[in-house]
Amino acid sequence: MAVNGYGVIGKRVADAVARQEDMELAGVSDINADWRSRMVTQKGFRLYSAASEHNDAMRDSGLDVTGALDDLLSVAEIVVDCTPKHVAARNVEIYREKGIKFIVQGGEKHAVTGHSFVAEASYESALDRDSTRVVSCNTTSIVRTLTALKPAGLLHRARGTLLRRATDPWESHLGGIMNTLVPEPEIPSHQGPDARSVDPELDVITMAVKVPETLAHLHYWAVQLTRPAEKEEVLEAFRSSSRIALIRMADGLTAINTVKELMADLGRPHDNLYEVALWSDMLKVEGDELFYGYMVDNQAIVIPETIDAIRALVGKVRDPKESIAKTNAALGIGAVTQALGGQ
Amino acid sequence: MAVNGYGVIGKRVADAVARQEDMELAGVSDINADWRSRMVTQKGFRLYSAASEHNDAMRDSGLDVTGALDDLLSVAEIVVDCTPKHVAARNVEIYREKGIKFIVQGGEKHAVTGHSFVAEASYESALDRDSTRVVSCNTTSIVRTLTALKPAGLLHRARGTLLRRATDPWESHLGGIMNTLVPEPEIPSHQGPDARSVDPELDVITMAVKVPETLAHLHYWAVQLTRPAEKEEVLEAFRSSSRIALIRMADGLTAINTVKELMADLGRPHDNLYEVALWSDMLKVEGDELFYGYMVDNQAIVIPETIDAIRALVGKVRDPKESIAKTNAALGIGAVTQALGGQ
Amino acid sequence: MAVNGYGVIGKRVADAVARQEDMELAGVSDINADWRSRMVTQKGFRLYSAASEHNDAMRDSGLDVTGALDDLLSVAEIVVDCTPKHVAARNVEIYREKGIKFIVQGGEKHAVTGHSFVAEASYESALDRDSTRVVSCNTTSIVRTLTALKPAGLLHRARGTLLRRATDPWESHLGGIMNTLVPEPEIPSHQGPDARSVDPELDVITMAVKVPETLAHLHYWAVQLTRPAEKEEVLEAFRSSSRIALIRMADGLTAINTVKELMADLGRPHDNLYEVALWSDMLKVEGDELFYGYMVDNQAIVIPETIDAIRALVGKVRDPKESIAKTNAALGIGAVTQALGGQ
Amino acid sequence: MAVNGYGVIGKRVADAVARQEDMELAGVSDINADWRSRMVTQKGFRLYSAASEHNDAMRDSGLDVTGALDDLLSVAEIVVDCTPKHVAARNVEIYREKGIKFIVQGGEKHAVTGHSFVAEASYESALDRDSTRVVSCNTTSIVRTLTALKPAGLLHRARGTLLRRATDPWESHLGGIMNTLVPEPEIPSHQGPDARSVDPELDVITMAVKVPETLAHLHYWAVQLTRPAEKEEVLEAFRSSSRIALIRMADGLTAINTVKELMADLGRPHDNLYEVALWSDMLKVEGDELFYGYMVDNQAIVIPETIDAIRALVGKVRDPKESIAKTNAALGIGAVTQALGGQ
Repeated sequence: MAVNGYGVIGKRVADAVARQEDMELAGVSDINADWRSRMVTQKGFRLYSAASEHNDAMRDSGLDVTGALDDLLSVAEIVVDCTPKHVAARNVEIYREKGIKFIVQGGEKHAVTGHSFVAEASYESALDRDSTRVVSCNTTSIVRTLTALKPAGLLHRARGTLLRRATDPWESHLGGIMNTLVPEPEIPSHQGPDARSVDPELDVITMAVKVPETLAHLHYWAVQLTRPAEKEEVLEAFRSSSRIALIRMADGLTAINTVKELMADLGRPHDNLYEVALWSDMLKVEGDELFYGYMVDNQAIVIPETIDAIRALVGKVRDPKESIAKTNAALGIGAVTQALGGQ
Repeated sequence: MAVNGYGVIGKRVADAVARQEDMELAGVSDINADWRSRMVTQKGFRLYSAASEHNDAMRDSGLDVTGALDDLLSVAEIVVDCTPKHVAARNVEIYREKGIKFIVQGGEKHAVTGHSFVAEASYESALDRDSTRVVSCNTTSIVRTLTALKPAGLLHRARGTLLRRATDPWESHLGGIMNTLVPEPEIPSHQGPDARSVDPELDVITMAVKVPETLAHLHYWAVQLTRPAEKEEVLEAFRSSSRIALIRMADGLTAINTVKELMADLGRPHDNLYEVALWSDMLKVEGDELFYGYMVDNQAIVIPETIDAIRALVGKVRDPKESIAKTNAALGIGAVTQALGGQ
Repeated sequence: MAVNGYGVIGKRVADAVARQEDMELAGVSDINADWRSRMVTQKGFRLYSAASEHNDAMRDSGLDVTGALDDLLSVAEIVVDCTPKHVAARNVEIYREKGIKFIVQGGEKHAVTGHSFVAEASYESALDRDSTRVVSCNTTSIVRTLTALKPAGLLHRARGTLLRRATDPWESHLGGIMNTLVPEPEIPSHQGPDARSVDPELDVITMAVKVPETLAHLHYWAVQLTRPAEKEEVLEAFRSSSRIALIRMADGLTAINTVKELMADLGRPHDNLYEVALWSDMLKVEGDELFYGYMVDNQAIVIPETIDAIRALVGKVRDPKESIAKTNAALGIGAVTQALGGQ
Repeated sequence: MAVNGYGVIGKRVADAVARQEDMELAGVSDINADWRSRMVTQKGFRLYSAASEHNDAMRDSGLDVTGALDDLLSVAEIVVDCTPKHVAARNVEIYREKGIKFIVQGGEKHAVTGHSFVAEASYESALDRDSTRVVSCNTTSIVRTLTALKPAGLLHRARGTLLRRATDPWESHLGGIMNTLVPEPEIPSHQGPDARSVDPELDVITMAVKVPETLAHLHYWAVQLTRPAEKEEVLEAFRSSSRIALIRMADGLTAINTVKELMADLGRPHDNLYEVALWSDMLKVEGDELFYGYMVDNQAIVIPETIDAIRALVGKVRDPKESIAKTNAALGIGAVTQALGGQ
């Protein structure tokens, strides 16, 4: 297993791969020569440069560089591409030439791999494929929650408002917004349509706005049900997904920073919230309409999906539930619900 | 005309009253002895204490105090109460005893006056009354926009997500939230039901969340229309209200801070945005559904309403349109649309 | 008088010029075709394009364009350049060719004009010159305060820590920093040395850090005096400058947002704080050391300086005090102290 | 070992005690019945109520309560008080009655215990005492850095400007400040004098201001040396403290959020930065003056000090260096410098 790009997603994928019993991390490739690349070897991972012409500069900075991306791709069966958008597109050609299986992130278009991945929805169709795309954080959360409503036959159509964190915490001195709100100029925003790349049946429209915080996205949904329902019926549907954690205002989890602190208290690396954290006591059913809000950790939610995507492409684990259970166990998913005493 | 309480709303009401040809400001009452009360006399208004026992302390601070609230109420025909919530409730008893007409703010319950006011919706039913309640900033915006859709027979039901500014700019060193989002624990939030205190026909459900900025609220709406419609038809309906300003992303008005700067450039006092600023190019009609977003200046939107409420209670101007036109002219409402070259 | 560039500084200079009895605004030149340029004609100023090739695009956007920069420079005696840094450097060549007097902003190097301007310190040496540079907001504040200490013979050397607002309010959706602090990598930061371009005698060292707010800079100073002094002596020295406003925590002016609100209450355009707002009750003298903090409105502090710089270059008003008094009267400088009842 | 109060400090002390080979955590006492107390047992620690009358309510919330504070104090040799200020004062009487050794936090006055603790400065005088006070985060950093300059005979006097984070990340929806800066009204601020409670020889004056971020404090210092010095000499002095980590802008550690991310990457619980993180390449010596800036993690810096304070009171480890080395090893202190390849 190789990770190309050691940024917000890459570092978390590398950590998560290292925690799986059935996976081995061949190495990590990056281009930086600063503190970030030092962390790769500090973690005990092999560091490769993005291209051999960078080797000298990186070694001059005192980095222990094993080789270049080419070398890394020669010793791995599959590569997870975690590079920035425009770089990933070029990398895909390299992966294809090399004949190595690959996973791209949600910033790429569906057409790049022809398959879009959310474990609970499209694991089986990814089995043995050469490549897939793990959809974006927002889209992952949409697919997780809305497909959970489908088995009970509850879902008619969903309309969501997405509050997007402006930038990531570690680089919030770049690209930040201050004391303002920045609406995405187009309605619908792209997240709704993108959910249909995983499940074409979904009737979803989203509006999105950038908000001045760095912790997580927050979604509000108004869902038209197929029929009047009880609140408990809806909660039961959400509980069917192991990657939706029901939380409660009444437990003191009243804001997104508090939920992040809970993750830190649970000892999760980087305070990762892998689950959709959905407030069960805030959720409301009015006749045949359903209203709720949830939190999406844009840095962490795709990590378990990526692990499952690796297993699906490799093809040894054929049952989605088996892969999901393995991933959950390795990452401690389920601990939130348990820690809160069940919801 | 008296203003009781010289805070965020009180200072703007006093300014606005002073700009009306047919109104006279008898004075302003407040309790503070710091820079805020100095501004009252600096503006050329008469300053009264909230109660005579404060007179000495205020005079010791160098303030030119004309008298106490009692004195002010004796020389005014009507009082606009702009004091904090719990104080207003007690004041109402004083106003009733004195037999002076009064207006309370949206923080008070409908039952306090038995009448809730938005100029375009309930001016006529307020005529000659002893009191009314100008509804809150959020509710004012909801009534303005949704009732604008009614004449064309478009409105079936509306579902909104409200991003609420956390605190006001001048006191944002108190009560702020930082790098987080704080959902209101209850769905529906109170703003939707409160709109029905003005127009009981409205079918509105709202969800609300506090966001870390101080400038304005931002609303996103998904409206079920009675029938499929054209975008232009909807825009025309919104244009029928002089207090909805259509703005465009394409004009560079891409965030709420930019819109506030436009208000400063227009020379408005305190950069007041009296209108609902609704993005016309972002607005989308999909079949029989309508989606849009708008900005609400919580410090300013109720000011023109309060001026009209005064006229309604006094009863000399019987036609809502006449009062609205007077208020608009005095406050420069209409200038946004004009400045932007029409929308 | 021409203003080239209608941004944060340009719009304030244009406003201020229009308020002077002895100046006339020939027009404003800009390149934008969005809402910002609409404000120029909305204000009643003549709008010119930055170059004639932009005329069509701007007119297509509905803007009333009088001509291009060339035309504007032909009808003005002096031009204030308020364009971004790299643009200004090129403009200077144009101004020189045209033989028009010009003023550049503090972003340019001293060498560009060979003269650096702060009214109270270098008006006389600017008289009749072809050009000058109004130094940056931070440097202006440093020169104002430190030179005020010189006549009493108090100043030995000054060490300052500068908290710099991260970006301007109107564009805080660009270039912001969020939930972090970003130190300037070099000590001393450039502001200290730059003060010596106005007054070479000053012994100043500064350290600077970007903070996540948009309102104003905040300076903390530790000054080594030439001798032990009384607090009142120091305050008296600061009072000698009409552009230092002494404010008090005890008046409720406890944070920079509160001081901005005071400016709004005073009815100043764009809530401009032209003065250095220095807390007199926070100021402390310990033996021969002086400690104090003050606030610098980076959008406004250079505006009165620019007006005086115009007068100095034109040369009709020979006495710095006369120009400063005219400017102060036109902009309402002095009102803060008066409004606060003297300090 | 008992911890009374499981908040920001208490949870970190409990974690750190559990990591020491020579300490055992008897239990944790708290009063909350929400998610925070659930974390105590989730971590495997015994949970006690603050008083027996709370037992039922906490058990009703599903918490596994072992007993009340009284019970906890009976089974521990020493208690670390991590309760809020006014509560701690009352607790001290209980500890004294019970005859249990105790440690209070820096919010309490020096007089409460008569001894103030920073490991590198006052371990020996704390040996075998009944109690001590671990000084506040800011004061700890001041003592660490200034006493490091003493052996080389460099320190004359130090003047600091302290940028204080406004509130803690987990509760930043309470007590936050937004888009403003709030100066502490008094100069000197209390941190300077408080350093003298540990080392009376220090000549320190501080000015402080609250800034709108939650991550860490940032200090800027101008130090008058006893003589001109070389930069390397100063760095060598700082390197003599194992709890000052020299970092570099040139390594990409350009802002406080980046440094926090480094802590997360190092796998530290809660991203704790136990060290003073001081920028070595930003540091400047000019003749006999020294200028530098550093970052203080207010949530974490006192944790190693508290561990050492426990050892000092217990008295088995007599050598400060031995205790400090044990604590450092258990908490991974030293890893920063190592990870960065030495500075």
